Amino acid sequence: MDISDNFMKYDPNKLQKFGFIKRDGLDSININPLQTAGRLTEDAKKALTEWGDGYSVCDYCDGILDLIKKPPIEDFVHNVLPEFLGTDQARVTNGAREAKFAVYNTLSKKGDYVIMDGLAHYSSKVAVERAGADVRTTEKTSSPEYEILPEHYIDAIDSGIKEFGKKPVAVQLTYPDGNYGNLADVKKISKIVKEYDVPFVLNCAYSVGRMPINCKSAGADIIVGSGHKSMASCGPVGVLGVNDEYADKIFRKSSHNKVKEIELLGCTSRGAPIMTMIASFPEVLRRTQPENWDLEVKKAQKFIKRLTDTGKFDIYGQKPHKHDLMFMKSEGFANISERAKGGRYFLYKELKERNIYGIKTGLTRNFKISTYGLTNEEVDYVAESFEDILKKYDEI
Amino acid sequence: MDISDNFMKYDPNKLQKFGFIKRDGLDSININPLQTAGRLTEDAKKALTEWGDGYSVCDYCDGILDLIKKPPIEDFVHNVLPEFLGTDQARVTNGAREAKFAVYNTLSKKGDYVIMDGLAHYSSKVAVERAGADVRTTEKTSSPEYEILPEHYIDAIDSGIKEFGKKPVAVQLTYPDGNYGNLADVKKISKIVKEYDVPFVLNCAYSVGRMPINCKSAGADIIVGSGHKSMASCGPVGVLGVNDEYADKIFRKSSHNKVKEIELLGCTSRGAPIMTMIASFPEVLRRTQPENWDLEVKKAQKFIKRLTDTGKFDIYGQKPHKHDLMFMKSEGFANISERAKGGRYFLYKELKERNIYGIKTGLTRNFKISTYGLTNEEVDYVAESFEDILKKYDEI
Repeated sequence: MDISDNFMKYDPNKLQKFGFIKRDGLDSININPLQTAGRLTEDAKKALTEWGDGYSVCDYCDGILDLIKKPPIEDFVHNVLPEFLGTDQARVTNGAREAKFAVYNTLSKKGDYVIMDGLAHYSSKVAVERAGADVRTTEKTSSPEYEILPEHYIDAIDSGIKEFGKKPVAVQLTYPDGNYGNLADVKKISKIVKEYDVPFVLNCAYSVGRMPINCKSAGADIIVGSGHKSMASCGPVGVLGVNDEYADKIFRKSSHNKVKEIELLGCTSRGAPIMTMIASFPEVLRRTQPENWDLEVKKAQKFIKRLTDTGKFDIYGQKPHKHDLMFMKSEGFANISERAKGGRYFLYKELKERNIYGIKTGLTRNFKISTYGLTNEEVDYVAESFEDILKKYDEI
Repeated sequence: MDISDNFMKYDPNKLQKFGFIKRDGLDSININPLQTAGRLTEDAKKALTEWGDGYSVCDYCDGILDLIKKPPIEDFVHNVLPEFLGTDQARVTNGAREAKFAVYNTLSKKGDYVIMDGLAHYSSKVAVERAGADVRTTEKTSSPEYEILPEHYIDAIDSGIKEFGKKPVAVQLTYPDGNYGNLADVKKISKIVKEYDVPFVLNCAYSVGRMPINCKSAGADIIVGSGHKSMASCGPVGVLGVNDEYADKIFRKSSHNKVKEIELLGCTSRGAPIMTMIASFPEVLRRTQPENWDLEVKKAQKFIKRLTDTGKFDIYGQKPHKHDLMFMKSEGFANISERAKGGRYFLYKELKERNIYGIKTGLTRNFKISTYGLTNEEVDYVAESFEDILKKYDEI
């Protein structure tokens, strides 16, 4: 038998569903929190076409990807990113979860554990699990706020020490969490973590690139962000900022190749992801300035007020709400789903007819949305559409 | 101090070097082996623009990325890819090295070791190192062939058993290696590895998507490929094929989330990478058919013959050469570099003037090139350009 025996035959008829595929809803208003701050800027769209080939930047590489001078990857990774994140050092990774894994794979071994907020995303827990360690989470307050309080961290760390007989190798806060958009009191929590002398990690997949946050000012040691979620980049791409105390460990070099960093497997983001991140960066920095973020928060609050004024909506999480990510509670839509044609799929259909995308098909009572980057007119249009649907089905 | 204190100020003047950046040589003939089979197809270019937003496919996801039905990701990952790779199961990863890491992080622990061919890429070794295990490599024959022979594997495995007191957790072959484009006798090697009852891993970053290879027919258990290197995809993206014997281990699920696979950190390729891979797949399958690969090999051999006929070129590696990746040896260019204006940078400049890209600046004596996917006219033009340069400097 030869190695090409049984090799798949080329049959164009069997491949018709592959090739180029159109994307539904590309020109719609998308209110999925995963999408609103990941959408490419015009510069990033141009960069995508220009640098889309897999290894495009590698033509300019002398062996260390993040030291490429032209295009200015070195300047971006080693000067701009650390300043942007508020850390001593930074790297670009294949995503926020990959950045967290690099951290936990470095800091932990079997038998170790990490403390996380009770709202931590599954990918944070899986990152620790992949590194062979355990996760313990904090409590949170009850519904509808689901807040993480500083004292929850004291309780969780103390229980961890009791259970494992040693301190956690790290403590993480998701800032904000990805369900309710809650922003915990990170400054108070960082002071608590510091007292235990343990590295404090911020998962900022929903904040870096959306709102101003400086790792050192927050009192943290390590910060993780997502390029495709919040930095208008073509994924998978993330950022990892680390203070000097942990940088040598996390960015340790290979014994097999003295210039390659083990946790990055030598090289990470090579083509479109890094170049779209660089392309979008000026706009990302502009929109993230405190005064612009304030406008985003006001926009979300105005949207919430308009909807709650109908008496048929509410939100989970902190009030007043301080982030564009909102977990809505809609008795109105839930009521309609019980009598509408198509049942719980009515909402997706009604919104699609209005050119609004991003609420999962079948959801009516509880769903996440985001107003980030939408114009005021678009936000009004979405609110008006929600009201129209309630009216159409005699809910208001 | 507030978390936004010291946040980077937006100063457009300081950001002028970022934003959209032009790519030099985009319309050139690129003979860099990293680039020739990674260049996007026309369908992939369209997919890139359509699906470029970070989480574009996630609007269609019910919780398990590789089970998305529309676009047909499930069909691609679970039906087409296993058939294409010749394995029971397959996944899309963030790259070939990330796929290897998933394998070695699963199979090995501290104190374990992996045997690899003496031509293995550093990223394979770093993948094992990141998993906490050691690497031992086989011998190879001397210059200029640098061949990996089946008996080298017997020697390496036996020495490993002697040194570690146990069998390796896996044995890997790089097929072909990324330096010389050598194709070892994989069938004989797989028989040897089978006798030791150890999983046999093929690193096919330079073969899957270029030439026909079926993992089972080759006698291997696990196969890894690179989307951005050899499958005309926007990186970072790779493929991982695994036979049933190892699939449950490598694709084990998280204890924190029952549908998420630990080694994939839950989800891998989300937007442009997976959609460009799907877009290019029909063309990738066409070009990889045995009769088309034969044409590629003949094209490379014709190029080699024309150059060696000048008496000023030779190649390292197997003869006759059986792959598009070639490591050239050029006494002619090396001679010129000693007297040309600009010294060893003359070659890059001469080629750039002829619109040929892909040989690293400063290299003249030894360099890698690839003729993959070039038209016969382009190959003739490159060969002619090499000859012209030799003539211009009176080498022939």
